[in-house]
Amino acid sequence: MQIAVLLYPGFTALDAVGPFEIISRLPDAETVFVAKEAGPVRNDMGNLALVADRTFAEVPRPDIVVVPGTGDWDPVTRDEETLDWLRTADATSTWTTSVCTGSLILGAAGLLRGRRATSHWLALDLLKTYGAEATGERVVFDGKYVTAAGVSSGIDMGLHLVGRIAGDRHAQTVQLLTEYDPQPPYDAGSPEKAPAEVVAFWRAEMGQAS
Amino acid sequence: MQIAVLLYPGFTALDAVGPFEIISRLPDAETVFVAKEAGPVRNDMGNLALVADRTFAEVPRPDIVVVPGTGDWDPVTRDEETLDWLRTADATSTWTTSVCTGSLILGAAGLLRGRRATSHWLALDLLKTYGAEATGERVVFDGKYVTAAGVSSGIDMGLHLVGRIAGDRHAQTVQLLTEYDPQPPYDAGSPEKAPAEVVAFWRAEMGQAS
Repeated sequence: MQIAVLLYPGFTALDAVGPFEIISRLPDAETVFVAKEAGPVRNDMGNLALVADRTFAEVPRPDIVVVPGTGDWDPVTRDEETLDWLRTADATSTWTTSVCTGSLILGAAGLLRGRRATSHWLALDLLKTYGAEATGERVVFDGKYVTAAGVSSGIDMGLHLVGRIAGDRHAQTVQLLTEYDPQPPYDAGSPEKAPAEVVAFWRAEMGQAS
Repeated sequence: MQIAVLLYPGFTALDAVGPFEIISRLPDAETVFVAKEAGPVRNDMGNLALVADRTFAEVPRPDIVVVPGTGDWDPVTRDEETLDWLRTADATSTWTTSVCTGSLILGAAGLLRGRRATSHWLALDLLKTYGAEATGERVVFDGKYVTAAGVSSGIDMGLHLVGRIAGDRHAQTVQLLTEYDPQPPYDAGSPEKAPAEVVAFWRAEMGQAS
């Protein structure tokens, strides 16, 4: 089973590494980081580069595709070479997945029309413009399309996928070995739970009504 | 404020990227990935390389040090150049931190003697051999030393640190923007919660009594 994690300039690192750390522990999985060109690809904050070991041409038929998000989705959602690779990979994939605004990239490739999907909470309105039925859920399965909410949700998505593919016991083992027993010191991880003025500030930043 | 994330061959990617994604959102933070030599450093599974942008010599006085763990800690815990850099950086750091078996590396550098600390649940016995008081807690503060349990716990540690450094409201904002509202599909993330036979299997693998 081949897992391909897409890299492109400006991706959010945890969007890629969270699900990677979980699903690359699937039995007999080969995981490859793939980009337009092989070599280092820098993240959104510019302070970390991950290496793409493979080019698009070298990974035409992955079984699982993982698309991380970015705070600056305009360039990648207009990049036909990236969208073409996604459409090609999706044609034969078993699972096509995204984290955070990665769903906008899947949407731009035309892969989420009429499908239930999720995204970063600030990007749900935009997701609808690609014909998706946007939900605020953390992990959404619609057939082989699996989308996760903001940044850290890719870890939850990874465990769901491992469970579906390799069974509950394997997923529980991965959860134990990665000690995913979350104990955040705050309960502010969604717009329903965070302080209202913090949510309002960020909605205003995005030009959204509160 | 300068944050230095240590890289060394065989590190676990999420150990580094989890806390990175959180604490690099501190106000006025500069985050650098540092290693013995600049360039790509490959992870434990061999399927991902992160780029160290700086050498040890270039980062002598970081304010925060983050040490990720590894399943193969022998080489790095015996590497005097790495341990020397850690001791130097620690001499002036505000916070010296680790995730997972990164605490064994801090221990090997002699930095955890007599201190309360944590590690991956399978490494707590080993942690004691470095003179630390090993606890099974997820995040442990002892003065400026902050240690986190296995792999994913670095995200929780990051939020604790952001709260201590920049206040609750900033930490809640980071939690909201990274949508850290965990909803794992299983409750198996600690040896107390996972199926007993899974825990026993891994303890036996490590040569530990159940």
